[in-house]
Amino acid sequence: MKLSPLQEARYEYKPKLPGMLRNGISEICVKTGEKTKSVADQEKIAALFPNTYGKCEITFEKGKNTSDNKKQVVGVILSGGQAPGGHNVICGLYDALKATNKDNVLLGFKGGPSGLIEDDYIEMTDQYIDSYRNTGGFDIIGSGRTKLETEEQFEIVTEVAKKHGLTAIVIIGGDDSNTNAAVLAEYMAAHNTGVQVIGCPKTIDGDLKNEDIEASFGFDTATKTYSEVIGNIERDANSAKKYWHFIKVMGRSASHVALECALETQPNICLIGEEVAAKKMSLEDIANQIADSVEARANNGDNFGVAIIPEGIIEFVPEFSKLIAEINELLAGESAEEFNNLVDWASKEHFIERGLSDKSMKVFALLPEFVQKQLFLERDPHGNVQVSLIESEKLISSLVADTLDVRKAKGKYKGKFSPLHHFFGYEGRCAFPSNFDADYCYSLGYNAFMLIQYGYTGYLSKVSNLAKPAEEWIAGGMPITKMMNIERRNGEDKPVIRKALVDLDGAPFRYFAQKRDTWAVETAYTYPGAIQYYGPSSVCDITTRTLALEHK
Amino acid sequence: MKLSPLQEARYEYKPKLPGMLRNGISEICVKTGEKTKSVADQEKIAALFPNTYGKCEITFEKGKNTSDNKKQVVGVILSGGQAPGGHNVICGLYDALKATNKDNVLLGFKGGPSGLIEDDYIEMTDQYIDSYRNTGGFDIIGSGRTKLETEEQFEIVTEVAKKHGLTAIVIIGGDDSNTNAAVLAEYMAAHNTGVQVIGCPKTIDGDLKNEDIEASFGFDTATKTYSEVIGNIERDANSAKKYWHFIKVMGRSASHVALECALETQPNICLIGEEVAAKKMSLEDIANQIADSVEARANNGDNFGVAIIPEGIIEFVPEFSKLIAEINELLAGESAEEFNNLVDWASKEHFIERGLSDKSMKVFALLPEFVQKQLFLERDPHGNVQVSLIESEKLISSLVADTLDVRKAKGKYKGKFSPLHHFFGYEGRCAFPSNFDADYCYSLGYNAFMLIQYGYTGYLSKVSNLAKPAEEWIAGGMPITKMMNIERRNGEDKPVIRKALVDLDGAPFRYFAQKRDTWAVETAYTYPGAIQYYGPSSVCDITTRTLALEHK
Repeated sequence: MKLSPLQEARYEYKPKLPGMLRNGISEICVKTGEKTKSVADQEKIAALFPNTYGKCEITFEKGKNTSDNKKQVVGVILSGGQAPGGHNVICGLYDALKATNKDNVLLGFKGGPSGLIEDDYIEMTDQYIDSYRNTGGFDIIGSGRTKLETEEQFEIVTEVAKKHGLTAIVIIGGDDSNTNAAVLAEYMAAHNTGVQVIGCPKTIDGDLKNEDIEASFGFDTATKTYSEVIGNIERDANSAKKYWHFIKVMGRSASHVALECALETQPNICLIGEEVAAKKMSLEDIANQIADSVEARANNGDNFGVAIIPEGIIEFVPEFSKLIAEINELLAGESAEEFNNLVDWASKEHFIERGLSDKSMKVFALLPEFVQKQLFLERDPHGNVQVSLIESEKLISSLVADTLDVRKAKGKYKGKFSPLHHFFGYEGRCAFPSNFDADYCYSLGYNAFMLIQYGYTGYLSKVSNLAKPAEEWIAGGMPITKMMNIERRNGEDKPVIRKALVDLDGAPFRYFAQKRDTWAVETAYTYPGAIQYYGPSSVCDITTRTLALEHK
Repeated sequence: MKLSPLQEARYEYKPKLPGMLRNGISEICVKTGEKTKSVADQEKIAALFPNTYGKCEITFEKGKNTSDNKKQVVGVILSGGQAPGGHNVICGLYDALKATNKDNVLLGFKGGPSGLIEDDYIEMTDQYIDSYRNTGGFDIIGSGRTKLETEEQFEIVTEVAKKHGLTAIVIIGGDDSNTNAAVLAEYMAAHNTGVQVIGCPKTIDGDLKNEDIEASFGFDTATKTYSEVIGNIERDANSAKKYWHFIKVMGRSASHVALECALETQPNICLIGEEVAAKKMSLEDIANQIADSVEARANNGDNFGVAIIPEGIIEFVPEFSKLIAEINELLAGESAEEFNNLVDWASKEHFIERGLSDKSMKVFALLPEFVQKQLFLERDPHGNVQVSLIESEKLISSLVADTLDVRKAKGKYKGKFSPLHHFFGYEGRCAFPSNFDADYCYSLGYNAFMLIQYGYTGYLSKVSNLAKPAEEWIAGGMPITKMMNIERRNGEDKPVIRKALVDLDGAPFRYFAQKRDTWAVETAYTYPGAIQYYGPSSVCDITTRTLALEHK
C-alpha cells in the first residue's frame, strides 16, 4: 500500500472555480477597477516602486479573452512553512497555463527561493501534476526559508530567468514572501527583463489578512485539523472528568489560530496574545484568570477542563518581555563568562538576583524552576534567551497550580488539579486540503496564470467573497504595493505588508469575548470531528468561523 | 454553536447490523453450537465457575423469536478508558430493548462500576439516547476504573439490582472488566438472583483479542485518528526535509496500536515492544537500529524521518527492567532516607554507582541526565520508580543522538539530526466512531440485548467475520469462561482473559517485518488523511490493516 484510499479518492476531486473563471480560457476578460495607493506612507512607497506603484485593481469577468498569445514559461516557488493547498495552487496554475497553450511551460523551482537562485527545478508534466492534485504538503517541489531580497539575488534570478526564457515567476508565500515578490516585480520591471511576478497569499497562521486578502490559504484546513483533535480531547476530558488539558497551538506572532480553534470547540479558556498585550496583562493575571475557571468548575464538581494557549503567548506579556531584555543585557559581553563560571545554580541565582531589576526579579521568582534554568542555561549562539523553546503551556499550567495552592491554603479552593499538556502544529500544516482550501488554492493558481496572461506584474492573485459558495467568489488581482506600509525592521525602514493581528474590535474576537465567561464555567464543548471531504455540504464545504463572523 | 455540523449529521447515520439481526426482533432465533471449555486450566476454571462454565456457543439466525416475554430492566456500565463507539453500544442495546417491549427499561449507571455500587444512575429515554448516537466519548454516563471483584461489592450490586428489579447487567470494558463480568455472572447465578450479566469487548489498545474476539471496539477509530496525524507529520517531514519526528502512541502493555499505525503510514521506523522483549534487545540495540536508518537516509541526502514508538517500549527492554528493579531495591527502606539526605546530584551519583550492579550501572550511564534524575528523584509514594512518567520518545531520540555523535566522530556519519517529539493518546480515544466502529458497537449492543432476552449469562456479546461487509457479520454469544486461563496476578492465582500481545508469527507483524528494511531507507510514507464518514466505500467503510491481514 503506497497510496491511501483517501489519496486515490482525492485525485478525482474537481476543485470549484469562481463563477467567472468557469467558462473556459477563451471566455475570461478583464474589468479594470480603480487606481490604487498604498494603505499608508504613499509617497515613500510610490518612490520605492516607480514602475509598479499605483496600478489599477482588476477583476475578471465572462467575456472574450483579449490577451496576447505569446508562449509563456512560468517559474513557481513555494516559500516558508507548509500550508495545506500549496499543491493545488500549482495544479490550478498548470491547468490554466496548459489550457491557454499546450506549449506553455511550468517550471517548479525546488526547495523554496533557493531553488530559483541555484537553478534547481523540475518541469511540470500532466502525470507529475496529477499525482499531487488535492493533496497536502509541499513535497511537490519542496519549500525553504531563504529570503529573496538582495540586489545580488535579483541579478542571479534574472540570469536564471533569461536562461529558461521565463516570462513570469509565481511566488507562493506569506507576508514577507509577498513583500519580496513586489520588490522583485519592481526590479524586473525597472530592468526591462520582461519577467512578471505574481504573489499568492499562504500561511496557516492567518496573519496575512487585510481588506484585499480575506483569508490566507491553509488556515482553514490547519485550524480544522487542530479543532478536530482539540474537540476529541474535550470529549475525553468530559468523559474521564479528571484532567485539565493545556493545549498549545501554532501561531507565534498572532493568535488567529487559537481564536478560530476556540470558536470551533468552545473550550473553558483560550488566551489571545493581542489581548494580553493590549491589557498589559501580567503572568499573575493570566494565572488568576485560568485559576478562576478551575475554581468555579471545581465548585460545580468539575475537576477538568481545556485551555488553548497560543504558541507565542508569553512574548505578549509586557513584564516577561522586559525580563527577557534584562537577561539578554545581563549576560551580554564579559558577564556571560562570569556567569558561566559559577559552579552551581545557587550562586547563579545570586548573580541573577543582583543583576535584575526588582520588578523583573519578582517576575523571575514566579517562574517554575525548569523555566528559570532554561532562561539562563539554554541561550542561542549570540547569548540571547531562546524564548521560542520555552514550553509556554507547561509554564502557564505550573503558574496556575501555584495559584491554586495558595487558594487551597486559604480554604478558598477545594478541588483537584491534574494538568496534561499538548502541542499541535506539525499535525495541521500538511493535511489534505479541505474542500475550501482545495477550491481556493486551485482558484488562486488558475487566477495567477490569468494575471500573467494579461501582462500584470507585482500583483497578488486575489480571490474574494470567500464566505459565499465558490460560484460567487470574485477573481482578480491587486497590486501588492497597495497593501504596503513602511515599518522599522532590523533597524531599517522597509516597505512591507502589515502583519494582521487579531483585531480586538473585530467580530470573531467580540463573539468569543461575549461567550467566554460562560464557557469558563460551564462545559459548553463543541466537537467538530475530522475534516470531511464528502457528505452533506454543511459538513464538507463550510469554511472558518472567523471568516463567517468577519463577513456576516 | 453548541453542536458541530458533523455531530448533527452523524445523528442521522443508521448503523449497519449483521444480516441476521436485520429482520426485526420477531425474526431472531438462536442456533446453539458446541459446548465450550476454557482455553487452558479447564479443571480449575470449571471449579471456579460451576454455574456458568461449559455452556454452548450460540449464534443468531433468521427465524421465529421464541424468547420469554418478561419485562426486562437492564443496567449498563462503561468501564475503564474511553474508546470510540461506547455510546453506540448503549444505543444498540436500547433500541433492541425498546423494540422488544416498550415497557422495558435501560438504566445507565454513572461513572463506571462505582455507579453500580453507589446506585448512581440515569434512566435512558429516546431523547437522551438520540443525543449520543454515533458520537465519541463516554460522556453519556461516564466511566471509571473501580474494579468490580470483591464479594462485598457483589453483595451491594445484588441489593441495587433488587431495588431496581434488574434482570441483567451489561458491562462494557476491557479484559479485566470482562473477566469481572464472568465472575459477577457466576455470583449472580450461584445466589439465584435472576440477574444475567453480559460483557462487551472494548479497548483502543487492541490487546483484547482472541479466536472469539476479532477486534475490540475503538481500535479502528483510535488508530485511524493517530494515523491521520502521523501521516500529516510524515508529509510535513517530507516537505520540510529537516526533522526526525519521534512519535509516541498509546499502548502500554502491547504494541498493536503502533503496529497498525505503521501499516497505515509506512514510517521509517516502528518499534514493537513484543519483538524487543523476544529478542532481548538492549537500549543500545534500539538506538543502533534507528541510527542505521538515520545514517542510510542521510547518505541519500534525506536528513529527516519518522519513528513510531509504543508508549510502553522501555518496559520491554530486559536490561532496563533489571535496572528499574535494582533501583527500587536500592532505595527500599532506610537507604531511601540516606539517599534523600545527600545534598547534591554528584554525591547521589556516587551513591548510585556503589549500589547498582556493573551491568545496570552501564545501562544507567547510557541514559540522558534528565532520565537519570527522573529515575531517582520522581518516585511514587512507595518509593518505586514511575516508569510510566518517563518520556520514552525523548529518551530514545537522545540515545540515537549519542550514537550518531560517536559515528560522526569516527567519520562514518555526516548528516544532520534534529529530532522533534509528539505523543498521541487522548486525541484518539473520543473521536467520532468510524463507520466500522459505529456499526460494530451498535451491533454489539443490539446483540447483547438479544443474549439477555434469550436468558444467557456470563456471555460475551460476540460479533465476528468483521473483515467482511456488515451484512456478512455473524452475531452471537460466547461464554466468557471459554477465553479464560489461570494467571498469577499480585501473588494470587486468578482466572483471567489472557491479554493479547502482538504475535510475532502473525500476518500483520510478518508483513511489517518484510517491508521495514525498505521503509527504513526510502521515503515510502502513506498519508491516510482524516477519518471519512461519507464518500466512496473504499474510503469510509474500510477497517484496520491488522484485521485485513489477520483474515486474508
